[in-house]
Amino acid sequence: MEVNADHFFKAAKLDTPRKTNKVGSNVTLINVMQIPGLNTLGISIARIDYAPLGQNPPHTHPRATEILTVLEGTLYVGFVTSNPNTLFSKVLNKGDVFVFPKGLIHFQFNPNPHQPAVAIATLSSQNPGVITIANAVFGSKPPISDDVLAKAFQVEKGTIDWLQAQFWENNHY
Amino acid sequence: MEVNADHFFKAAKLDTPRKTNKVGSNVTLINVMQIPGLNTLGISIARIDYAPLGQNPPHTHPRATEILTVLEGTLYVGFVTSNPNTLFSKVLNKGDVFVFPKGLIHFQFNPNPHQPAVAIATLSSQNPGVITIANAVFGSKPPISDDVLAKAFQVEKGTIDWLQAQFWENNHY
Amino acid sequence: MEVNADHFFKAAKLDTPRKTNKVGSNVTLINVMQIPGLNTLGISIARIDYAPLGQNPPHTHPRATEILTVLEGTLYVGFVTSNPNTLFSKVLNKGDVFVFPKGLIHFQFNPNPHQPAVAIATLSSQNPGVITIANAVFGSKPPISDDVLAKAFQVEKGTIDWLQAQFWENNHY
Amino acid sequence: MEVNADHFFKAAKLDTPRKTNKVGSNVTLINVMQIPGLNTLGISIARIDYAPLGQNPPHTHPRATEILTVLEGTLYVGFVTSNPNTLFSKVLNKGDVFVFPKGLIHFQFNPNPHQPAVAIATLSSQNPGVITIANAVFGSKPPISDDVLAKAFQVEKGTIDWLQAQFWENNHY
Amino acid sequence: MEVNADHFFKAAKLDTPRKTNKVGSNVTLINVMQIPGLNTLGISIARIDYAPLGQNPPHTHPRATEILTVLEGTLYVGFVTSNPNTLFSKVLNKGDVFVFPKGLIHFQFNPNPHQPAVAIATLSSQNPGVITIANAVFGSKPPISDDVLAKAFQVEKGTIDWLQAQFWENNHY
Amino acid sequence: MEVNADHFFKAAKLDTPRKTNKVGSNVTLINVMQIPGLNTLGISIARIDYAPLGQNPPHTHPRATEILTVLEGTLYVGFVTSNPNTLFSKVLNKGDVFVFPKGLIHFQFNPNPHQPAVAIATLSSQNPGVITIANAVFGSKPPISDDVLAKAFQVEKGTIDWLQAQFWENNHY
Repeated sequence: MEVNADHFFKAAKLDTPRKTNKVGSNVTLINVMQIPGLNTLGISIARIDYAPLGQNPPHTHPRATEILTVLEGTLYVGFVTSNPNTLFSKVLNKGDVFVFPKGLIHFQFNPNPHQPAVAIATLSSQNPGVITIANAVFGSKPPISDDVLAKAFQVEKGTIDWLQAQFWENNHY
Repeated sequence: MEVNADHFFKAAKLDTPRKTNKVGSNVTLINVMQIPGLNTLGISIARIDYAPLGQNPPHTHPRATEILTVLEGTLYVGFVTSNPNTLFSKVLNKGDVFVFPKGLIHFQFNPNPHQPAVAIATLSSQNPGVITIANAVFGSKPPISDDVLAKAFQVEKGTIDWLQAQFWENNHY
Repeated sequence: MEVNADHFFKAAKLDTPRKTNKVGSNVTLINVMQIPGLNTLGISIARIDYAPLGQNPPHTHPRATEILTVLEGTLYVGFVTSNPNTLFSKVLNKGDVFVFPKGLIHFQFNPNPHQPAVAIATLSSQNPGVITIANAVFGSKPPISDDVLAKAFQVEKGTIDWLQAQFWENNHY
Repeated sequence: MEVNADHFFKAAKLDTPRKTNKVGSNVTLINVMQIPGLNTLGISIARIDYAPLGQNPPHTHPRATEILTVLEGTLYVGFVTSNPNTLFSKVLNKGDVFVFPKGLIHFQFNPNPHQPAVAIATLSSQNPGVITIANAVFGSKPPISDDVLAKAFQVEKGTIDWLQAQFWENNHY
Repeated sequence: MEVNADHFFKAAKLDTPRKTNKVGSNVTLINVMQIPGLNTLGISIARIDYAPLGQNPPHTHPRATEILTVLEGTLYVGFVTSNPNTLFSKVLNKGDVFVFPKGLIHFQFNPNPHQPAVAIATLSSQNPGVITIANAVFGSKPPISDDVLAKAFQVEKGTIDWLQAQFWENNHY
Repeated sequence: MEVNADHFFKAAKLDTPRKTNKVGSNVTLINVMQIPGLNTLGISIARIDYAPLGQNPPHTHPRATEILTVLEGTLYVGFVTSNPNTLFSKVLNKGDVFVFPKGLIHFQFNPNPHQPAVAIATLSSQNPGVITIANAVFGSKPPISDDVLAKAFQVEKGTIDWLQAQFWENNHY
């Protein structure tokens, strides 16, 4: 197969609003799976849509730093450092730029109850990965033992089981 | 200052049992802060003590892969992949070796109600960092907004506030 | 100095149109000079404005791959491979994504005589550098010998001198 | 296939003068294509011959820094920094060493009208790539639009067309 | 083949003493050959047993830094810097930690005539390699010319031949 | 201090023969200590002179792969792989190129009793380091214990002491 311009291209419609999910967001990631020419080049890009009061919930990228730029609306964003767990947060307006360092837990929240928000996120890996904390902890298949989670989160096992029941059904890839 | 052998050495007493914390573990990490000669060399080591039924709760290392070797006892260990969130878990006996790939959420749990466990963990960074999920999410200073967390974890804000009150006091660095 | 959220933030106004230069473009780059928290993290971002018939002329980034996403308008874009010099080009519409691999000469041109265009470019370096070919070759200070350039471009020395006179005045940093 | 010493060897005759091309130079590059044992090892080497008044015209290596050592003759060499475009140049005599940092435009010119020159160049990549500026800009296949180039180089489209006609025929790989 | 937890696991019995070799040591290395999940992750681990007065003789790891932790007994350890050749040495007791920087010649020796010693070594490569100096120099197959070695070690060729005869038989992989 | 062309330059006289040492060689290394502009750029260069029957004795570069090119004369060269210790050797003539992979023990020997030889070596590090095996093992300051060396090299302690006496005086940096 001969390499051509289409191996470096994707008609990704990153200008088009997406329907948001249960927590009010939608991430459209363009990585090496969509654009094979990105192989070995260490970068990818995503559009993120936020419903009013929607959020991109706390998550990490195990292999990438992220730069976020707000295209529409307002976002309350933050990341938590490792030891000690300090929250660095900021309210971002249209046109603002914010950095989430590699591997740290971060989130974005649209505080506006009436207007959606849109951001472009760029990531320093051709395959950054994403670990949504609540889903990974409570919705993994098979589930993590509720003995482990009850102690880790300092709640009753019944609470863990209830959380797992909720997240399990979300995790339908 | 002249560099000498002591810059590559630490009398770390990694043979000595440590008192475990509230969730039943204790991590003694030897990284570039303890041994300046590790600078630029990309590796560190830790001893981990587990009380009976103790755990090293779900956490990530933003900058390192980890190899765990069991020195004493039994450990139920696991990590969760990114998208989809599959749990890879295993019961490890004395002498077994297990790998937690870079940036993924992982945990170790001592299922034995009577005996402690001990492991050696090695990490592919001179400063791997650690993000204990429950502490970072619920115990950060300042706290993450309970609006964000309630939706992310699909629980009442009251539950989040209660969790934050518990973890806040833990986070005393 | 204590690190805080502002070290990871820039009110960059990337939503706001910029006045374009002589060749009809304007690149607003946000790199480690603007956001000190990007240090060691290997990524940066830019907004590019294109006037009608404007261009971001042939250039390279010595230390970065670039992903370009069209926010407004249409762009004819391309890059040239090394040995042999094959042009990979494409007409991009709003929402399309294209990759310019590290170190290769590339350009963007707005073929529309009436409408401006806007793109977001992300780069896989905290300090990607940019070498605009015509400026670097003909406008360097001091100038490259016209003996060298006349032979390299297979034109008369008079033509080189005329080009150098034009570009010299542009290069006012 | 068993690996043996021949996978790390090339009878490259780097001691032997080469016939120079139209602009008076010849680059004999020994990279991973010639020596498979270089794979993953990040280095390559070249002999460069220069005719009297010959040059290795302005070019970049997208993936490598270069160290040049003069074996015979005299060379006027230089590279241009990115923003601002400063020329760093030097006249090199036999035995001198000069560095061209990764990705920057550079050239070598033999100012002697009677004597050839010879240099050894080493590059920090097993596959450094080379982009000869004039060939890549004016001789790519297919050609870059003359609308783009006329504006970029601030000349008439007729001049661009004439340049493209000249370089097109050179680019016969 | 589906990836599962067993690709990240090895029942390596690192708790079990090994029979030591002719110079009184035994290295049980767990690298990417034993645990395929280590691929691209840049770390490995080993158990080292030392007989009374046994040693892990002078060697290098061409692709890794090593951290050594003493589990049992006492070790006299050291490494030699490059130019000038300074020896950095230390007597390590149980629980002590020591670093051998990447590529440097190092050794461990159990000075106790009655008790064995045990250490855990971790290495910053999934495939660190090991070059035992005496074996590589005197026991390679085919042998290095005794002309070369006699001059390098400033001894008679007869001495070299005698050494080669001894090491040749050791090198039975 | 303003950076200028001299930070990328060294009048290294690499064309000029050097007086060889006791084992018949001389390495003139140009690295980041001589050319500060090499900082972060990962490459260096050396001229090596060989007397008739002279050698560059078995050594390693802890941080670099090397490409060797013969400028004058003939060289018998080789490197030894790690486990098993296979010797890859070759007789090189003028103009030949050979690769010594990172961290492996290698040597060059001039088999000609009447003619000197010259080579250019390039290394994939701005500061490759060099560990001459015999000097590092027998000539370190302070010396490695002769208990260790006698067993490692399977010779009498008296032989080790004699070797150490010889190399100790060489190691005058």
